[in-house]
Amino acid sequence: MNLIILTDNDRVDEHNYVVRDQRAEHIRMILKLKEGDTLETGLVNGPIGNAVVARVTPDEVLMQCSRWTQAAPPALEIDLICALPRPQTLKKILITSAMMGVRSLHLIRANRVEKSYFQSPLIQPEHQLSFLLEGLSQGKLTRLPLVQVHDRFRRFFEEELTLLSDVPSGPPLRLLCSPVTAVTIDSVYVRSTREVTVAVGPEGGWVPFEVDLMLALGFRSFTLGPWTLRVEHAVTAALAQIELVRAKMTG
Amino acid sequence: MNLIILTDNDRVDEHNYVVRDQRAEHIRMILKLKEGDTLETGLVNGPIGNAVVARVTPDEVLMQCSRWTQAAPPALEIDLICALPRPQTLKKILITSAMMGVRSLHLIRANRVEKSYFQSPLIQPEHQLSFLLEGLSQGKLTRLPLVQVHDRFRRFFEEELTLLSDVPSGPPLRLLCSPVTAVTIDSVYVRSTREVTVAVGPEGGWVPFEVDLMLALGFRSFTLGPWTLRVEHAVTAALAQIELVRAKMTG
Repeated sequence: MNLIILTDNDRVDEHNYVVRDQRAEHIRMILKLKEGDTLETGLVNGPIGNAVVARVTPDEVLMQCSRWTQAAPPALEIDLICALPRPQTLKKILITSAMMGVRSLHLIRANRVEKSYFQSPLIQPEHQLSFLLEGLSQGKLTRLPLVQVHDRFRRFFEEELTLLSDVPSGPPLRLLCSPVTAVTIDSVYVRSTREVTVAVGPEGGWVPFEVDLMLALGFRSFTLGPWTLRVEHAVTAALAQIELVRAKMTG
Repeated sequence: MNLIILTDNDRVDEHNYVVRDQRAEHIRMILKLKEGDTLETGLVNGPIGNAVVARVTPDEVLMQCSRWTQAAPPALEIDLICALPRPQTLKKILITSAMMGVRSLHLIRANRVEKSYFQSPLIQPEHQLSFLLEGLSQGKLTRLPLVQVHDRFRRFFEEELTLLSDVPSGPPLRLLCSPVTAVTIDSVYVRSTREVTVAVGPEGGWVPFEVDLMLALGFRSFTLGPWTLRVEHAVTAALAQIELVRAKMTG
């Protein structure tokens, strides 16, 4: 935990917060803080600041947080589309998305997505929250990514995706990680924009119909490299390459 | 499992191999293969080819492998240095290193590495093998990365590291992932070489003495991006960025 993330549920009055879960254990056992010590905390979707430990018991830690020193770190201007992965992989994608500051995560149906994945409790927001908070805590960020599940492939791309384009800084660049192209991301990142929508396929890949539909909607294919990657590695690799190319394109 | 990896231990005679572990289960339950079906197999540190399923029982699968169609895929010319991480993280690094074709992985002592990590069974080669094979199987590769543990930081950099430079294509570029620089990898990847040595620090980072020693030995610092990443994500991000820049530098 690089940042203790606090939520409204932890709040007991204007400046005081109580934690009882693994955050309390981290403060007691790893940070070994005592009454009067300070620590860095972040409010979900809010600022980062310094808290003072007011009380430590075996069950809970009470903190007084009145000095917010830094506005919420901005999200990357990246919307991530993933074919809904198996639950164990979805947990990793949720953590990574929050840790790396993804703005929104769209989990979509695709031909090679097993139908049972849509029955997983993890597609419910209340079961996603702990993984998102874990990612924020690791990444020292506070903004929760918006997570949406879309159970119709074509409707997502033809109707819902356009809502992602409604950003003040102009239409996002649309990118598609592909194992069959040799084109690298710097060849398709041709506009000076920080707004990116990037799609990562299911295990086994997209089927031709899916790729064709995305290409028709302006998605550009690029290769992450010579590898056959797991979905969670593809997400990290894609974000790392986007950030590198974007830093150069947009100064 | 994208490729069933076979070892000498699985061999029963010149062309026949028997598997009984999760590979047998994968062949039976996921691939649902029967006698006479073919599947892609790879020999550890050897070629890739097609095997014919000769017998399937609840306990084992016998395969006849006599058609090797592809030489062992080449390793990336990348040597990875990691401060020895906690065992759970080390498993992920072993899988990722094999999956992404790292040539060698050097696990080193550093100031912020807990001494107990050197007592983990996982620093023994026999306990690393299953994770390396899992990575090869995912990445459709067959070459095992060389994994070495170095328990003296200074000796590794001042003596053992030079052995990594003994490659026919010239001295490797030496890179160091750093959370405190704004310099991106394309600014430090200044030589047209595919040989790269890249160092990833421990949780909490290198201490100044360690960074200074690496810089004095020609390592160049670069940022992976604006993130605070876990070690396993840093490794994937670094390899992805190296591959992108290298593809451009070396055609």
